[in-house]
Amino acid sequence: MIIVLKPSTSPEQIQHFTDKLCADYDVKVNRWDGIQSTVLGLIGDTHNVDIEYIDAQDIVESVKRVQEPYKKANRKFHPENTVVKINDKVSIGDGSLHIMAGPCSVESEEQIVQIAKAVSVSGATLLRGGAFKPRTSPYAFQGLKSEGLDLLKIARKETGLPIVTEIMRTSHIDMFENVDIIQVGARNMQNFDLLKELGKTKKPILLKRGLSATIEEWLMSAEYIMAGGNDNVILCERGIRTYETYTRNTLDISAIPIIKKLSHLPVIVDPSHASGKSWLVEPLAMAAVAAGADGLIIEVHNDPPHAWSDGAQSITPNQFDSVAKKLFALKKALQNEN
Amino acid sequence: MIIVLKPSTSPEQIQHFTDKLCADYDVKVNRWDGIQSTVLGLIGDTHNVDIEYIDAQDIVESVKRVQEPYKKANRKFHPENTVVKINDKVSIGDGSLHIMAGPCSVESEEQIVQIAKAVSVSGATLLRGGAFKPRTSPYAFQGLKSEGLDLLKIARKETGLPIVTEIMRTSHIDMFENVDIIQVGARNMQNFDLLKELGKTKKPILLKRGLSATIEEWLMSAEYIMAGGNDNVILCERGIRTYETYTRNTLDISAIPIIKKLSHLPVIVDPSHASGKSWLVEPLAMAAVAAGADGLIIEVHNDPPHAWSDGAQSITPNQFDSVAKKLFALKKALQNEN
Amino acid sequence: MIIVLKPSTSPEQIQHFTDKLCADYDVKVNRWDGIQSTVLGLIGDTHNVDIEYIDAQDIVESVKRVQEPYKKANRKFHPENTVVKINDKVSIGDGSLHIMAGPCSVESEEQIVQIAKAVSVSGATLLRGGAFKPRTSPYAFQGLKSEGLDLLKIARKETGLPIVTEIMRTSHIDMFENVDIIQVGARNMQNFDLLKELGKTKKPILLKRGLSATIEEWLMSAEYIMAGGNDNVILCERGIRTYETYTRNTLDISAIPIIKKLSHLPVIVDPSHASGKSWLVEPLAMAAVAAGADGLIIEVHNDPPHAWSDGAQSITPNQFDSVAKKLFALKKALQNEN
Amino acid sequence: MIIVLKPSTSPEQIQHFTDKLCADYDVKVNRWDGIQSTVLGLIGDTHNVDIEYIDAQDIVESVKRVQEPYKKANRKFHPENTVVKINDKVSIGDGSLHIMAGPCSVESEEQIVQIAKAVSVSGATLLRGGAFKPRTSPYAFQGLKSEGLDLLKIARKETGLPIVTEIMRTSHIDMFENVDIIQVGARNMQNFDLLKELGKTKKPILLKRGLSATIEEWLMSAEYIMAGGNDNVILCERGIRTYETYTRNTLDISAIPIIKKLSHLPVIVDPSHASGKSWLVEPLAMAAVAAGADGLIIEVHNDPPHAWSDGAQSITPNQFDSVAKKLFALKKALQNEN
Repeated sequence: MIIVLKPSTSPEQIQHFTDKLCADYDVKVNRWDGIQSTVLGLIGDTHNVDIEYIDAQDIVESVKRVQEPYKKANRKFHPENTVVKINDKVSIGDGSLHIMAGPCSVESEEQIVQIAKAVSVSGATLLRGGAFKPRTSPYAFQGLKSEGLDLLKIARKETGLPIVTEIMRTSHIDMFENVDIIQVGARNMQNFDLLKELGKTKKPILLKRGLSATIEEWLMSAEYIMAGGNDNVILCERGIRTYETYTRNTLDISAIPIIKKLSHLPVIVDPSHASGKSWLVEPLAMAAVAAGADGLIIEVHNDPPHAWSDGAQSITPNQFDSVAKKLFALKKALQNEN
Repeated sequence: MIIVLKPSTSPEQIQHFTDKLCADYDVKVNRWDGIQSTVLGLIGDTHNVDIEYIDAQDIVESVKRVQEPYKKANRKFHPENTVVKINDKVSIGDGSLHIMAGPCSVESEEQIVQIAKAVSVSGATLLRGGAFKPRTSPYAFQGLKSEGLDLLKIARKETGLPIVTEIMRTSHIDMFENVDIIQVGARNMQNFDLLKELGKTKKPILLKRGLSATIEEWLMSAEYIMAGGNDNVILCERGIRTYETYTRNTLDISAIPIIKKLSHLPVIVDPSHASGKSWLVEPLAMAAVAAGADGLIIEVHNDPPHAWSDGAQSITPNQFDSVAKKLFALKKALQNEN
Repeated sequence: MIIVLKPSTSPEQIQHFTDKLCADYDVKVNRWDGIQSTVLGLIGDTHNVDIEYIDAQDIVESVKRVQEPYKKANRKFHPENTVVKINDKVSIGDGSLHIMAGPCSVESEEQIVQIAKAVSVSGATLLRGGAFKPRTSPYAFQGLKSEGLDLLKIARKETGLPIVTEIMRTSHIDMFENVDIIQVGARNMQNFDLLKELGKTKKPILLKRGLSATIEEWLMSAEYIMAGGNDNVILCERGIRTYETYTRNTLDISAIPIIKKLSHLPVIVDPSHASGKSWLVEPLAMAAVAAGADGLIIEVHNDPPHAWSDGAQSITPNQFDSVAKKLFALKKALQNEN
Repeated sequence: MIIVLKPSTSPEQIQHFTDKLCADYDVKVNRWDGIQSTVLGLIGDTHNVDIEYIDAQDIVESVKRVQEPYKKANRKFHPENTVVKINDKVSIGDGSLHIMAGPCSVESEEQIVQIAKAVSVSGATLLRGGAFKPRTSPYAFQGLKSEGLDLLKIARKETGLPIVTEIMRTSHIDMFENVDIIQVGARNMQNFDLLKELGKTKKPILLKRGLSATIEEWLMSAEYIMAGGNDNVILCERGIRTYETYTRNTLDISAIPIIKKLSHLPVIVDPSHASGKSWLVEPLAMAAVAAGADGLIIEVHNDPPHAWSDGAQSITPNQFDSVAKKLFALKKALQNEN
């Protein structure tokens, strides 16, 4: 961490500040006196140095991190890829391509089982489906709740597909015990209390990027989970909020190679929520695979116009079959090339 | 709600869709056949019509709301200003100016009592202070928690100032029973489960705008609380996330008159979090009052460089005294003018 | 165009407004009276109806376009892809993949010829290079200007590669007569006077998307050129400005399939400016090809650390050779699949 | 400027880089060796050091400016406020409040003279009006052009109000010789060729902030004009593009005190374009004055629903009279207070 002091700072103030830094943190302080200003450099483990605290000092002109503020999620301290193993067949982050597919909301046993069977045949290796739904309006359908979880388990039994579903409050963690991957939605990415509690479990967590979260904030939220002892975190890019309104969100395709560089965690992409339009799912999914994503999460509905939520962005099982074929062919072509 | 159908839609499809709309919602459907396309207009109470559901229909080209999707928060159905009464002296939204002041984090009894006394003398009518702190880093100070709440109550006893503090999880609602205003932070604005539970209480809620929430989404979150039966909602504009990095956030000053037009709820401004810089607190607070805000929430710390959080944006009690004088003088000048 | 009138509008006002619309534009007006409000529908050619004018009427509650405001750039009126033919070997938009490669700035004959030869061997079919440089600072290198154009022509003669370079003012159009593709930079995307003058030429124009331009505004700028009679427009997505600061801009990968749907014009991608980081060029270029781009424009410098501009995002000829191989292999795999 | 080198950098590379920096720029280089990395500090005049060039070096981890990249616009080198004197009565930046009022577009002699007289009576000290109009659509009204300039001069003769109007191309500078303030629109803020040419004149320039320009980029555009020798620059905040669509743009009210701190140039606010809604003009103008703006530019039209452009955001002369009264009363109250 590099700290630029204001020109007017006295030697006594510098000494006092330096002493305090050494006392508060496990760091050494190097000092460099320029003509206009003095610069301090913190050596050692600075990931827990509070940059806001430093910045608030009267004598500080500005501060710059050299090290990233996250440690457990940082590739520098963990060079190998993390592989999140779901079962004997599904390991996310191992170089293969995994597709999580299913409806936005679980609606009935018939619906979820039918979709699960269809996407399984087409190559999906996990089943997604919402039981508890975060909706902007209190008057919109809020999900089948615990009944939805039960239906997902039935579909799992029928198809063998592990299930992925979203949690919305801390007190539900016990209820999600038998879920294979617990999803934290974009709106809860900085629900720190929820992250802390999930950190105490060993469950694989699918952590969606917040609507306007920076990549660093997203990794800091992963760090919350990992700091509690749970390393099974899968990141999910699902589009960010920008000024462009043609798409529901703007898919930040750059996030994939950036996460791969900064972190060892697997990263997947949600082209359905990123775009909000079913006809954009295929090209965005193709781009995600070409950019190096470990997987995809795609909304598939047997009857999108009658979906209880997010129908506009869902594709049918037939469309999914065609998209999945192209995605696996692309993945294979990319692997042959390297 | 105006629904534009695709040119290829058949009369049978239109009839079927119309019948379904009338069956599902309490609306009538008017139809208008143009040369290129047919337009349907929904008459009646459309606030609970799911626009995503409509948009997902194969035959729908596009949809446009005419009515707002919020009802209880809507000024059209409640023309008079809502006044949130905290105690005999403090009523927010009644035309007077209220300032909530205090430290970002409660740190000690001495600190909070000293600040409370100082800001009270300068004209603040409520005491703010964080006991549970949402921090981006798991390694940063997370607040004194329940001890912080106790210290706030001591400061309230010493000064008579009602207290405002942030809640971070549903299971803490009982613990906040004796708090005067419960704050929902920006990161929890769409923690719908928390909003629902707060809707079951009668507590005044200070609902901060999310980092990238639209005004409509913010009002929809207020609607979540109000739909549960709790009308005591105070909105708080605290800056939005934009591409500009000079300030921590970009204060959306337009939000004040817009909220006043769209809703009957009181709206206050947080110039400290909006800017992240103490020297911007005064001009932004002045702008907020001139734009019609019902109040302000300002971070005041007796020793900002040693604050445990957010010191860079805190002002000292002396600075607060000067700012408050100017704000009340401005408010008086504006009232004399009208 | 659908116009919702305010509830209080009188029949006389509606009649007067309807008459005026029919007189001013080549449209018919359909009217539909609901219980709460009246809706007018404009039938006919509405692309030149001024939506701001409509919106300003006292009696108008809101307006919604059904047709797009661009016509010549619109795929609805021109279903076949536009192919911009540069010479006998290079046709952009014909289904093949074209890569424009070269340095940000032309620096010397040796530099530009050397790079041109190298990228040509690796498969680039056009040479890019800046002679006039738009720089944020007046103190930064502004390009070799007309000398730079001469050097580009030398490189073209040596390699046969057509040249692409940026124009910055209307009065330079004559000077650019012998350039193969004239580039309009992001900062000039709404320099309407420049667009109008370029519309009077027959030159192929590479129109970069503005830093915060919507897709519709971008197509409207293409429309400016086309309205003047020049249909040779190639669109270039180069990243948009968002809150994320890790990358220089955020590549809007969705723009590629969206442009393909809305317009018949070819669209290419600039992964160098989009990211600002050389190590991101490969994954973003791969994603662009997978998403359907007609080409790429990539910064290549023989000695990036000594580049006079944008060195951080340039790759070396060796790196380019490796990237190009992967891109052409990917393109081939995608073609085989379909 | 602080440069952090990569851990792997050799002493020879550091020496070579240091020598090059000293040779290329008028700086000294201080060096500080930490355990993990070496930091270089550039001492001297770094405003013309190309940060992109530095950042492109293989051995550079990251760079941080300590000094701002603008010099002539920088308050540090010019502590007194710049006052732009238009005539004997109008000096912008001298502590008084100036209002520029008038229609978006000049439409006829009758229109512009009538509005000019009205706003003059209400206290406006300058007349605004567009002759050349930048419009998103090539099919929209583009202004009366040189005829519009003539009409503005007639209105000036009738009322004595100096005139402000927008220039759109370099070749028009002679035509604007007799205009009092030349406006550079938001879309041309980085039309660097236009800025350079305006820098060669002595004309007062009203420089609007670009749609997505940072405050630093805006000041760099002012620097372009000033570097040419023209110090008569007035900055105009007119709203920035964000994700919020309720308003046309988001007024960045913080920009006013920030410009006042960073620069000595006067700054005014355009509440009409910032909001796009006439009913928001008053509260935003009030906020601007309270935040310290030197003036305002407000769209006034005698008949907004029949305005040829931007009618939705124009207010009538009667409304302007009421707003102006409140603004001057507010300004007076603020002056009395200090």
